[in-house]
Amino acid sequence: MTKLSPKAGRGRPPTMKNPKEAILKSAAACFSDAGYEATSLNGIAHNLGMTKAGVYHYFPTKREIFDAIVSSVLKDMLIHSKSSCGGAENAPAELAAFVRAHAEFFEANQHKFSVLFNGRGGDKSDYTDDQITARRAYSDHLQAILERGVAQGSFEIEDTANFARAILGMLNWMSRWFDPQGEKTAAQIADGYTKILLNGVIPR
Amino acid sequence: MTKLSPKAGRGRPPTMKNPKEAILKSAAACFSDAGYEATSLNGIAHNLGMTKAGVYHYFPTKREIFDAIVSSVLKDMLIHSKSSCGGAENAPAELAAFVRAHAEFFEANQHKFSVLFNGRGGDKSDYTDDQITARRAYSDHLQAILERGVAQGSFEIEDTANFARAILGMLNWMSRWFDPQGEKTAAQIADGYTKILLNGVIPR
Repeated sequence: MTKLSPKAGRGRPPTMKNPKEAILKSAAACFSDAGYEATSLNGIAHNLGMTKAGVYHYFPTKREIFDAIVSSVLKDMLIHSKSSCGGAENAPAELAAFVRAHAEFFEANQHKFSVLFNGRGGDKSDYTDDQITARRAYSDHLQAILERGVAQGSFEIEDTANFARAILGMLNWMSRWFDPQGEKTAAQIADGYTKILLNGVIPR
Repeated sequence: MTKLSPKAGRGRPPTMKNPKEAILKSAAACFSDAGYEATSLNGIAHNLGMTKAGVYHYFPTKREIFDAIVSSVLKDMLIHSKSSCGGAENAPAELAAFVRAHAEFFEANQHKFSVLFNGRGGDKSDYTDDQITARRAYSDHLQAILERGVAQGSFEIEDTANFARAILGMLNWMSRWFDPQGEKTAAQIADGYTKILLNGVIPR
């Protein structure tokens, strides 16, 4: 029989399967709705039917919850993107896959995305060095797609770094206005963007 | 001789020409660097060599300073954009002028822009109804350019509302990464974006 640590499970409903993930999800919703400053460990716990001590067992501070949200979303979005782009036959298909994967991931993780972009309401020091490195890995992944396209003669792009930022901007901005109840899914909107990125608005 | 109100000029250096604008500029820099929550009226005053009473004379609360920044940047950017787009001969030139004007205005007002987009670190209720209306007027102005282009047969765009949001996203995202000391001006970066928006990345 496994011997439980004296702290294990304290204040946590016995039916919760992945309490750490549940806390991150609930906290992301609170940060996203009310802002980081206005959210308390108590509020996060209350939303989950947990006690503050139950949350504290996994994350002793609000800041650690914030960091766990940001780090997990950065890690998971790169994994999702790489697996989505893997099978693409050429650079245009790879770019289309990237854009669609980003939108899909955003739609499935809206609160966490909002936390990633809004930070803690402060400046760049909201993020750790590891998080900044992870963000760069993601934009490097996109830039590599653009550069492969240029090298193969499929794309004409003067400044791939700035254009990668433009693509991420148009996609990430969706977190400001996307309506989950709207007519189009995020992926459908993204497909429309890809069409214009590839072909431009001037008829060919 | 003009009779001064007993409060006039209290705590304000006599050399300051436009103290209201100076307060907004200084406050925008503070909000942008340290975040809204972490900024105090005292800190804003200190940056200007004013007393807190001097700032208080013009803006009794931090929230009023925030609102004045957001409202003025929204008003001024629409005026700048309309005057920049006015002389364009056709829809592609008009879109190019819009994108360039937005970037120019952003570069000249980076702190205020950052305040506009980061809000007070909370949710949508950071903005007043008038501010939301002013933001809509600006995106409607862009959407009208896109729709004129479609009507004239110059543009092929399936969803002009979503594409207007995409353009604003790619431009506004610059406030996250643009380096004023970098090689390119914001307008030069924007010109590169326009080229791709008009022609796409696939060679014609």
